[in-house]
Amino acid sequence: MKGLENKNFIPNLSFDCVIFGFNGKLLKILVLEYHNTGFFALPGGFIEVDQSIDEAAKKGVKDRTGLDNVFLEQFHVFGEVNRADPEHMRKILIANNDFTEENKWMLDRFNTVGYYALINYEEVSPAPDQFSDSIGWYAIDELPDLMMDHNQIVEKALIVLRNNLSEKLIGMNLLPPKFTMKQLQSVFEAILDQKLRRTTFQRKMLSLDILERHEKLFQGKAHKAPYLYSFK
Amino acid sequence: MKGLENKNFIPNLSFDCVIFGFNGKLLKILVLEYHNTGFFALPGGFIEVDQSIDEAAKKGVKDRTGLDNVFLEQFHVFGEVNRADPEHMRKILIANNDFTEENKWMLDRFNTVGYYALINYEEVSPAPDQFSDSIGWYAIDELPDLMMDHNQIVEKALIVLRNNLSEKLIGMNLLPPKFTMKQLQSVFEAILDQKLRRTTFQRKMLSLDILERHEKLFQGKAHKAPYLYSFK
Repeated sequence: MKGLENKNFIPNLSFDCVIFGFNGKLLKILVLEYHNTGFFALPGGFIEVDQSIDEAAKKGVKDRTGLDNVFLEQFHVFGEVNRADPEHMRKILIANNDFTEENKWMLDRFNTVGYYALINYEEVSPAPDQFSDSIGWYAIDELPDLMMDHNQIVEKALIVLRNNLSEKLIGMNLLPPKFTMKQLQSVFEAILDQKLRRTTFQRKMLSLDILERHEKLFQGKAHKAPYLYSFK
Repeated sequence: MKGLENKNFIPNLSFDCVIFGFNGKLLKILVLEYHNTGFFALPGGFIEVDQSIDEAAKKGVKDRTGLDNVFLEQFHVFGEVNRADPEHMRKILIANNDFTEENKWMLDRFNTVGYYALINYEEVSPAPDQFSDSIGWYAIDELPDLMMDHNQIVEKALIVLRNNLSEKLIGMNLLPPKFTMKQLQSVFEAILDQKLRRTTFQRKMLSLDILERHEKLFQGKAHKAPYLYSFK
């Protein structure tokens, strides 16, 4: 990790990103594998002294995954004293021939700011950075063991995503501009990982007052045509 | 600020707390005034090297306001490069005869973790700490100019509180265990600072599926008695 000198970075502070990939049916997460260590981890990094945390995370995602213009949102700071095991970082540095005196600050305690994003994984092609063997999408129920507390970070991100689902879908291009109630229900069912009752779902959605009703979608029998909706 | 030596604290990281006080009618915020500076600020502090961020915030609120067992929740990290003006901290240190070489780390860039809490201000008596002239509850529309970006931190906390209102009210003792729909509406109206339509409010609340209906509250005319509810 040449060039990552202590004086250029805020000590004891990092960011980690949970990038959710979704195609309307399956929810996945983007995971990196480090060279010669067998360690799987979320894309993350450090904050330069003249960078805001948001800027660092945005640039970090681009550098580590090749994905540009991912809309990241901060969701939680993980500040437990022993959350980061220095052994992991030591092994990564050794595997990269980078275990030098000036890199030892990376073994310190780190508080990490968690970010998350929701993108359509069919529309992007992530690329691994110089520290990683591979980068790939993993289904949320088939994640490998991630290093440090990264599995817990994913758990927390998932809770936040589920709580903010109706808000997050807006503007994230995971539905066409106009959609049927059935399409909307499929998205919720996939991310919440549970079947929902059609009548209850429809009543709740309408009561939230976030949908605008448009013309009917005519295909097949006219009397069964469903209404189209958009977000207000 | 004797004893606040650099080596005991995580550099470049602080916390600030927006403590909302609410009595069912008026929403207020707890603000400290620093000795001899005219600076108003949120209660905040630093994180010791062997403290989690949550522990530091919890202890900090107790030390700075005298309030114990406040239920704090982290809501956002403020990580802009120039959010903290070092002039403010310099003046506070000078006013406390504490502008020494070993305290100069406090003039550095600080990222701050924002916490918020919601308590009943009629049930507590905050006390100022050694650095402050006074501590007091200010109505949210009559806040003084706060130092650094503390007014923006309050704004953000207010948005988060409003978004999470139904969730936050649960377990926060701001309503009796059983309450009428009218009492619940009053709480929402006070915090959201807007009048709500009775019928719409009732329909939305019931559709959220978080309320359990109990017996009627009999007082006065029996045929007008409202139902009592509790949170599920």
